[in-house]
Amino acid sequence: MAFVLHPRLMVDTAGIADWSLSRLLLMNDKRYPWIVLVPRRADVTELFELDEAARITLTGEIARVSQRLKAWAKLRGGCDKINVGMIGNIVPQLHVHVVGRRKDDAAWPAPVWGQGAAQPYGAAELEQTLASLREAL
Amino acid sequence: MAFVLHPRLMVDTAGIADWSLSRLLLMNDKRYPWIVLVPRRADVTELFELDEAARITLTGEIARVSQRLKAWAKLRGGCDKINVGMIGNIVPQLHVHVVGRRKDDAAWPAPVWGQGAAQPYGAAELEQTLASLREAL
Repeated sequence: MAFVLHPRLMVDTAGIADWSLSRLLLMNDKRYPWIVLVPRRADVTELFELDEAARITLTGEIARVSQRLKAWAKLRGGCDKINVGMIGNIVPQLHVHVVGRRKDDAAWPAPVWGQGAAQPYGAAELEQTLASLREAL
Repeated sequence: MAFVLHPRLMVDTAGIADWSLSRLLLMNDKRYPWIVLVPRRADVTELFELDEAARITLTGEIARVSQRLKAWAKLRGGCDKINVGMIGNIVPQLHVHVVGRRKDDAAWPAPVWGQGAAQPYGAAELEQTLASLREAL
């Protein structure tokens, strides 16, 4: 079966790039620098359902996104901590949240999931952010 | 510098075992089957600060805990999803939450972090749970 992005992720995000394993998506919520990695594998819900090679690739991709997103966000308001989450209670397709957090952001120190309503980017702002992230990641 | 468990984790958890990289801890909150992995490395806050070999080991340990905790929890009330989180906004020492979730648990579908107050195990119940997990993991 082919990989198809879950419709909820399609609605909530914009595509940044496809890496070796994962599709990188920008969460359309300008309150936080927030990237979602989706391994391009069909029918995977839990991390342990990926074979070992894919798990290793995914971990490398999470680490790379985390490090570069932190550097990127530091130039744009700051970044004190990266939060990583694989939750999937609403969207069962395996996906990994990587979120840049600031001690003065809206949800700190709580996690961002389920906190308030997303603030979508404006169209131009979204294009600009995607272009900038494509260069930085 | 030697690895020393963060005092907050010491208070909130009970030790299960030391694996190759991580110390495994049981969160003292009987609302959820909830394990915390702490890589026994000093001064590490972000996943990307671990060297590649340690990252790979950690991922294997997370996958193993997730799979076995899910099987363990299925025999005790059920488990619909595993949630994995590396947050660290309060405790900077790198640690990984692995939480078994049920569609009828107290926080579903929200993540468990920051939701309500922990319900500690009784002393006998805690020892029993630790013994059972030591066998299952």
